[in-house]
Amino acid sequence: MQYPKSVQRLIAEFAKLPGVGKKSAERFALHLLKAGRRDATSLGRAAADLHDGIRTCSVCGTVDETDPCRICSDEKRDAGLLCVVEDVHDVLALEAVGRFAGRYHVLGGAISPLDGVGPEDLRMQELVQRVKDGGVREVILATSSSVAGDATCLYIEKLLEGSGVELTRIAFGLPVGTGIEHADPNTLARALEGRRRLR
Amino acid sequence: MQYPKSVQRLIAEFAKLPGVGKKSAERFALHLLKAGRRDATSLGRAAADLHDGIRTCSVCGTVDETDPCRICSDEKRDAGLLCVVEDVHDVLALEAVGRFAGRYHVLGGAISPLDGVGPEDLRMQELVQRVKDGGVREVILATSSSVAGDATCLYIEKLLEGSGVELTRIAFGLPVGTGIEHADPNTLARALEGRRRLR
Repeated sequence: MQYPKSVQRLIAEFAKLPGVGKKSAERFALHLLKAGRRDATSLGRAAADLHDGIRTCSVCGTVDETDPCRICSDEKRDAGLLCVVEDVHDVLALEAVGRFAGRYHVLGGAISPLDGVGPEDLRMQELVQRVKDGGVREVILATSSSVAGDATCLYIEKLLEGSGVELTRIAFGLPVGTGIEHADPNTLARALEGRRRLR
Repeated sequence: MQYPKSVQRLIAEFAKLPGVGKKSAERFALHLLKAGRRDATSLGRAAADLHDGIRTCSVCGTVDETDPCRICSDEKRDAGLLCVVEDVHDVLALEAVGRFAGRYHVLGGAISPLDGVGPEDLRMQELVQRVKDGGVREVILATSSSVAGDATCLYIEKLLEGSGVELTRIAFGLPVGTGIEHADPNTLARALEGRRRLR
C-alpha cells in the first residue's frame, strides 16, 4: 500500500525544499490532508503567487516590489558604504538590526567548488562595476564564517585590489550572551585572533 | 525593510506546518523564490490538488482513492486481526514492513487532555462498533510509546472490557541495531519489563 497519488506528489514537492527529508515531507503532507482543503489551497495559492509582483533589484540584487529596491532608492542611505552579503535573507537580517545605514550588494551565494558554485555564478562583475562607478568609500564583507564565506572574501579582496576602496570584514567572535565554556573551538580561536586593545 | 508581501504570505503558510519555525519557513520561501516560478507553481498546484480524489475509508479511517480502502476491501486479509493505530502514516509504516496481514483501525490521534484531544475526538465508537459487529478475534494496540499513547491504550482496554476479544499491545524495547549504552533509561526500563523467557 502506498499513499494516494496526490499525496505522493505533494510529498515529492516538499522533499525538494532545503533540509526537508522524506519523513518531514510526509508529515507536512499528512498535516495538510488532515487540516482540510482550505488550508492546503491557501498554501498552494501562496506558493503559486510567490513571484507575482516581485522584482530583483538591478542595482543590489535583493528582491522587492520595486526596481531599484527601497534601499537602493532611499537617498538618505549612505551610498559610500557597501555591505556585501551572500543572500537576500542576509539583507533582511542586517536590516532587522537597524544599525546599518549604507547599501547592499547581494552576491547570490558563496564560492564553493564542491557545490559547483564559482565566481562566475555570483554577482561579482556587478560589484566591480559599482566600485568602478565611484562613490563607494568602504566595502564591508559580510559573508558567512564558513569555508565558502572565507573563499568568497579572498576572491573579492583580489578582485578589488588597487581599486582604492577600503575593504573590511564583519567581526567574528563569541556570540553575545554565550559563556566561553559553550563556544566551539573555531569561534574561540576567532575571538582570540580578533581581540582588541582596551586602553 | 520587510519581505515583499507575497513572500511574507508564503512564509506565514509554511510556518503553520508542524515543526516549521519562522527561520525554516523563510528558508523554504526564499528557496522557491530563487528556484523560480515553475518550481513554486509546481508545489502550489500539488498542495491545492491534495484533496482531489482522496477518500477517508468509512471502515478503518485511513485515506485512499477508494472507500472502502484497498486494505479493507482485500478479501485475502484477515478481518479477525485488528491493528489500532493513531494516524494514517502509522498504517503506511506498518504496511512497509509487509508482515501484518490483518486490517487497521485509525483513531485519528491519541488521548491528550493538554492538547485538547479527548476520546470523543477519536474514532472510538467506530472501534467498539467494529468489535460488536463480530468477526474480530484480536485487537492489537499499536499506539506510540508516549504518555498519550499509553493513555489511549488504557482507555481502549476499559472500553473493550467484556467484549471477549483478545487485546494485545506491540512490544517496546531496544531498537534493533542499537547498543545498550545508547538507549535512554525509559527504553531500557521497557526492555527489561518486557523480557522473555528463552527456554
